[in-house]
Amino acid sequence: MPVVGMAGGGQLARMTQQAAIALGVSLRVLAGAPDESAAKAVSDVRVGDDRSRDDLLAFAKGCDVVTFDHEHVPGPHIRELEESGVPCRPGAAALAHAQDKLVMRERLSGLGVPCPAYAPVPASEPAAFLAEYGREHGWPLVLKATRGGYDGKGVWIVDEPSGEVERLLAEGVDLMVEQHVPFRRELAALVARSPYGQGAAYPIVETVQEGGICTEVIAPAPGLSDDLAAEAQSLALRVAEELGVVGLLAVELFETDAGLLVNELAMRPHNSGHWTIEGSRTSQFEQHLRAVLDLPLGSTEPTAPYTVMANVLGGDDPDVYSRYIHVMAHDPAVKVHMYGKESRPGRKIGHVTALGTDLDDVRERARHAADYLRWGTKMGEKRK
Amino acid sequence: MPVVGMAGGGQLARMTQQAAIALGVSLRVLAGAPDESAAKAVSDVRVGDDRSRDDLLAFAKGCDVVTFDHEHVPGPHIRELEESGVPCRPGAAALAHAQDKLVMRERLSGLGVPCPAYAPVPASEPAAFLAEYGREHGWPLVLKATRGGYDGKGVWIVDEPSGEVERLLAEGVDLMVEQHVPFRRELAALVARSPYGQGAAYPIVETVQEGGICTEVIAPAPGLSDDLAAEAQSLALRVAEELGVVGLLAVELFETDAGLLVNELAMRPHNSGHWTIEGSRTSQFEQHLRAVLDLPLGSTEPTAPYTVMANVLGGDDPDVYSRYIHVMAHDPAVKVHMYGKESRPGRKIGHVTALGTDLDDVRERARHAADYLRWGTKMGEKRK
Repeated sequence: MPVVGMAGGGQLARMTQQAAIALGVSLRVLAGAPDESAAKAVSDVRVGDDRSRDDLLAFAKGCDVVTFDHEHVPGPHIRELEESGVPCRPGAAALAHAQDKLVMRERLSGLGVPCPAYAPVPASEPAAFLAEYGREHGWPLVLKATRGGYDGKGVWIVDEPSGEVERLLAEGVDLMVEQHVPFRRELAALVARSPYGQGAAYPIVETVQEGGICTEVIAPAPGLSDDLAAEAQSLALRVAEELGVVGLLAVELFETDAGLLVNELAMRPHNSGHWTIEGSRTSQFEQHLRAVLDLPLGSTEPTAPYTVMANVLGGDDPDVYSRYIHVMAHDPAVKVHMYGKESRPGRKIGHVTALGTDLDDVRERARHAADYLRWGTKMGEKRK
Repeated sequence: MPVVGMAGGGQLARMTQQAAIALGVSLRVLAGAPDESAAKAVSDVRVGDDRSRDDLLAFAKGCDVVTFDHEHVPGPHIRELEESGVPCRPGAAALAHAQDKLVMRERLSGLGVPCPAYAPVPASEPAAFLAEYGREHGWPLVLKATRGGYDGKGVWIVDEPSGEVERLLAEGVDLMVEQHVPFRRELAALVARSPYGQGAAYPIVETVQEGGICTEVIAPAPGLSDDLAAEAQSLALRVAEELGVVGLLAVELFETDAGLLVNELAMRPHNSGHWTIEGSRTSQFEQHLRAVLDLPLGSTEPTAPYTVMANVLGGDDPDVYSRYIHVMAHDPAVKVHMYGKESRPGRKIGHVTALGTDLDDVRERARHAADYLRWGTKMGEKRK
């Protein structure tokens, strides 16, 4: 049985372990510490720094394929691994587009894939540049660090050419600016691609964000026309093929009056696909393993008319377990997924999933469970 | 988060780990060797002998609750653990009925639960006793070791009062004899019970055995009347309550012209419940954890009209992984579960699950996948 190495010890690697157990595949995780989310769930843990060349090379020894639970492994290290004969999936060339937002924008625009207007922010006289860009595209603008952001970090909505920009540039943060798109809602297209070239697309989902963090995913996106759904799936499959992605590709989209625009790319299991654990015949974690192992991809058929996933964010009372009793007694069919992470206010520490035929009911069930696990009875907080 | 200790490192503990990961619960496994099925899938493995008092006591230190993936932990050790304040679920008193078939028969008969006619085989003149028993109940008879059997081991269908009996008795094997029941088919009732007293029953399934080994489980049992299904569920819930079972209880049943008879009991996740991983809102593994942790039990609602599980037995070609490509390409929706066990002819090394609305189709899909994984193309064997 093959050994799949996953760099990164977060919840994505943790949930990949559930799929690896079923497939009988050995998952080896490179975690930053022995108490990280995935390290608590996997027998074959190597503790090290996945940004360190030496740690990465030592980790990869004996792996049949190396994959990633985040975008932060430096491209040159991945290229060195590939050159030494270790298959990295996705490879460095593809992953570059998930690691650098400017690289991604330039490539997608070159392919004719619709994106918001964007530009790199020049190091000299950035404020004057932004003032001009704002006059052309309107305020506010979206400022992004080209590398290293996640969950809303590294993204700023700015109302004026502020001094913040010069401070960030002075700190060595490469910035780009984008038009602030007036979108109706956010969607996500999740597809998988294998080295053989097989592609598989999940139903298009709606993602609900609060403060840059995804709080809720509705599968399928309610009221989305078949045409637009097919367009989003085709777009994601095409991007996966053009960029040579192997494994999962999540394409975050804006639905606007003028059609779909690509917001972000991720090349790994993605928060917008957690619903697939119960809501699809093949979970995104199993699909990612099948893709990176060059196995035939699994069915993406949904198991229910609607599946809703709600993220559980840490609240002020970290004793989440004491609240299982209420949540499970209240709704025996809601599924709880906790990540083995210490609870801190606002931190993603788990998610819950509900499914059924009545969307309002399914959403209410997922929200109730997530809100309750966040706040708990001890808080006496009014829930949404 | 609580720590659940499971004595035994087999596939039941392995699959329990998948549920523990979701619940955020730590599963600690006492395995006989570091390469046992569950030991490969769990981060917190203690290697030791789960029949050894000292190993068991050391293992239990720091566990919030101890449970079992088989019946072979000696009752006195479990009682000692309980007396030292470690909750064992099921406890020694309940587990005795799954450890000793004679104890089980006597207790169930005392409760008025229908069982086949049975009797202990006396140490003196057993052949004469069997001859007389055969005259009364007809041949063949079923001879059983009262303790230690599994998967058809420890069970013999005998056509005459043979010398085998005296040999086994001389070896110190306690024997009982049972009427050979002319059954229509075999069923299984799977229920859970929590310390709080909550019970939950899964749909009644049909189990198909070949050579004493379960090869196929059909959920729900086709053509079973609602009345008989309800009777089987009630019977299992009543047995769980009367025996004080905590966790899962599987009741293997004969469906006969005269009604239901109890064949065997198991107090743990059971082969007849593997279909629940995909086929029920709550898998038996999650349910067992919820029960032993005294959490509210999960919904046992089925996710499809029919779910069929087929066991994968080892064939002559141990390279099972090379056959994934065919199985997954042939049927993208079939789910493969391999146990990380070395393939040996006839050994249970995994299972597959298919679900859908057309029973014949679902059975054929599950059988094809299981047969193919067993034999492989290299064998050139004719499949069933």
